[in-house]
This record gives sequence, structure tokens and C-alpha cells, in this order.
Amino acid sequence: MTPEDQRKRVEVCFSPSQFHLYRTDFEICVVIDVLRATSAICSAIAHGVQAIIPVSTVEEARAYQQQGHLAAAEREGQIVEGFEFGNSPYAYMNPELKGKIIALTTTNGTRAINIASEFSQVVIGSLNNLDAVSDWLIEEERSVLLLGSGWKDKFNLEDTICAGAIADKLIDSGKFKAEEDSTIAAKFISRSARDNIFAFLKASSHRRRLKRLNLNEDVKYCLTTNTLDVIPVLRNGQIENLHS
Amino acid sequence: MTPEDQRKRVEVCFSPSQFHLYRTDFEICVVIDVLRATSAICSAIAHGVQAIIPVSTVEEARAYQQQGHLAAAEREGQIVEGFEFGNSPYAYMNPELKGKIIALTTTNGTRAINIASEFSQVVIGSLNNLDAVSDWLIEEERSVLLLGSGWKDKFNLEDTICAGAIADKLIDSGKFKAEEDSTIAAKFISRSARDNIFAFLKASSHRRRLKRLNLNEDVKYCLTTNTLDVIPVLRNGQIENLHS
Repeated sequence: MTPEDQRKRVEVCFSPSQFHLYRTDFEICVVIDVLRATSAICSAIAHGVQAIIPVSTVEEARAYQQQGHLAAAEREGQIVEGFEFGNSPYAYMNPELKGKIIALTTTNGTRAINIASEFSQVVIGSLNNLDAVSDWLIEEERSVLLLGSGWKDKFNLEDTICAGAIADKLIDSGKFKAEEDSTIAAKFISRSARDNIFAFLKASSHRRRLKRLNLNEDVKYCLTTNTLDVIPVLRNGQIENLHS
Repeated sequence: MTPEDQRKRVEVCFSPSQFHLYRTDFEICVVIDVLRATSAICSAIAHGVQAIIPVSTVEEARAYQQQGHLAAAEREGQIVEGFEFGNSPYAYMNPELKGKIIALTTTNGTRAINIASEFSQVVIGSLNNLDAVSDWLIEEERSVLLLGSGWKDKFNLEDTICAGAIADKLIDSGKFKAEEDSTIAAKFISRSARDNIFAFLKASSHRRRLKRLNLNEDVKYCLTTNTLDVIPVLRNGQIENLHS
């Protein structure tokens, strides 16, 4: 156990609209967009995609496309016209994408990644790589801000559950402490949800949204913990595996 | 039971920094600052103060003072120098204040009230007048936004517990529905806390802050439900009892 006053802080910021209130005093920012951007990025990196370039606008993604790059775009849960794929984690398992670099824009996740990019260390978190990221953060022992992507700047449940689970693991290690009410709430919600995240989220706004779009299989994939042993990190504007 | 599609919405906005994301489409805004501004306002109105004028800055409060009005000011949990009282609910039980009009500024609560004042109907909510406000809202059957004052724009637990409890009562009535994840989370946290709010909040940031200032008696008062049968409302810039 690290003495209390030497413990590093780990805190949860619910959405990009709160980022300015939390951004200082942390060394690492973990960006979380469980449904579905950061889950898709983890899937891509785990299945051999070399790098994802997160871009904020559809126009930027289109510019990459016009330069001959692969590009993916999602808005309001759907693939944007003119793009072959969006942010379904299944789309990134295609063997043809191995070794490729793909530009990606999504409604919330890639925007949150770009907002977080003022940090020198940005990590991509999801339920799929929960333990991989948490174990690495505990080893690093640097202060951590967990940033939920939210839905159009609003709080969402699934990112909060994931952030709370990471915070819980870090605090449990004895090397981290939390002071913010948002972190207490996230830990609490995460513990209540962990035995059956899928059922817990039944009423959530984003699950309803994706259900209407017939994306239940995607949702199941994204809500399953510890299926992927990757730690995607942002490096010079590209997301790659930490150990690549 | 009102048919589902005719039910009015009730939603929770965690803090003023999120207000712009939630403000449209609601008819009533309930402002909540459990520790301690809205609890103190409820106490004042219940103990015979005629009206509270919520002002955002200490300078405005001082201007009222210089014009011969009573004025109260709190910053960082403490009474501001030059003022006789701040936002302790006990201070407003003084019989000498009966029938008086008092200008009040606090760190979070009065600012939230002024932000909410774009609504034609603003109501002051606290745990102290939980049932009084909830029963009235159910009777009114108009859409409701529950605005937590937070702590310097950040999420806080006690306002969320209060907002969640009001949302729960409104939804239970069969006349209201909620769609936002913030409302689902607030309801959930509120249900978990309700049997012992004081213990639940032990680790919260604001309780630690007030404990350092020896304000435990204030905290106990503010966390006790249904002690006051008042519905303070904003009317022409002044907060008065609805039925006055």
C-alpha cells in the first residue's frame, strides 16, 4: 500500500462537456466510448489493423478517403453514406484490414479522443480491454483521468460503468485515490451493474437507440468484459497498440 | 395511469455546466442545492421570511446591503466578511427575520437559480421539502427539469440524490416518464442512498468540505427529508412561497 498522501489520483469525467473542469493535474487520459467507438478501436487493433486515425468531422474522413486511405464514418449510430464501414467492432475483424491504417470519425468517441489529445498520454479504454488497461495503469502509477465520451456531451451509463470499473481496480490496488463525487458515483454504478451489464443497461438511452438500428449483436460484444488484450494509445495523431 | 406517449417528461441535469444541453422542452425547472442554498431558502420561507432575492455575485449582495436591505453571502462554505449570515438553514430561523426580504448569494445555488430563471416557472427543491414539491409537480402535470447546482459546475452526489428522489416519485405517479441516462443514474443512486443518506454521503467531496468547517449540524439538517411543507418559487426575481 502506498501511503495515502502519496497515492496518485484517478477521477472520472462523465463527458467532454465537463472536460475543462477536470483536465488539469492528470498525467494520463483514458478515453471511453463503450457504444461503440473505443470498443471498435480495440477490436481493430486486436485484429491486426496497424493504426486508426481519429478525426472529428465527416469531411476530414472524406479527405483521407480521397487521398486513397481507408476511412470509416458513423453518425447517429449509422454508417455515413459513401463509407464502407462505421464503428461496428465486427467490421474491423476483416482479415483484409490487417496492417492497414484507417481514418475514423464517430458521433462521440473520436471527438472525445481529439479533445483529450492535449494530454501527452492518451489511452483507449473499453469493457473489452478493461483489465489490460487497468493493469497497465496500476503499473505506471501516474495520475489518471477517465473521460467518458457521453452522448452529444451528455452523461451516459455505459461509459460511466466502464470508467467506474477502471477506477475501482486502480483504487483497490492501494496506489490510487479518488476525491470527486463523479468518481464515487461511477464506482457505485459500476459495482451495481457488473454482474449483468446488459440487463442493467436495458433502459439506457443508447441501448434503445442501437436496438432500433438492429445493433444488438454489436451491443453484446461491446458490453463483454476482457475479451481483448490490447492497450491502444495515441501516438502522433494515430492510435496504435502500446506494444507495437 | 396516463398513456405512455402522453406522459410528461421529467429529467435530471447534474449541474449548471450541462444546462444548455437540457434546457429546451421543459415547462418547469426545479433548482436543487442540498448543501446548503436551497435547503436554507426552504428554511427561510418556512420560518416566515417574506422573500429571498438570489444574486450571483458578492458585489450585488453588497449593493443590496448598502441600500439598507438584509443580505447574506457564502463562498467556499463560509460566511463572506461583512455579512451577518451565509447559507446555514439555522440562521434563517431567527424570529427577527420574519416578514423580511433578504438578498442571498452562494457559491453554487443562487447562480443555478439565476441560470434557471429563463424558465417561466422556477421552483426551489431540497430534501427538506421533497414531498411538498413532488406532490405539487405531480398535480401540475407539466414537464420538469431537475437542475442540480453541483460544486463549481461539477456533478455532486447530494443534489443528484434529491433530484433522483423527485424523479422517482413523479415517474411512480404514472404521469411522467424519463429518457435520459442521467435520470436513470440519479434514480438509481437515490434509491440506494435513501435509507441512510448521511452514511451514503460520508465519502462525498462536499461533506468532507463542510466537516472541515464544523458544519455537521447543518449537514444533518439538510439531509433530513420532509421536514418543511413549503414550495418556494421564483416570482419577478424574488423567491416566495407559492401559496403566499
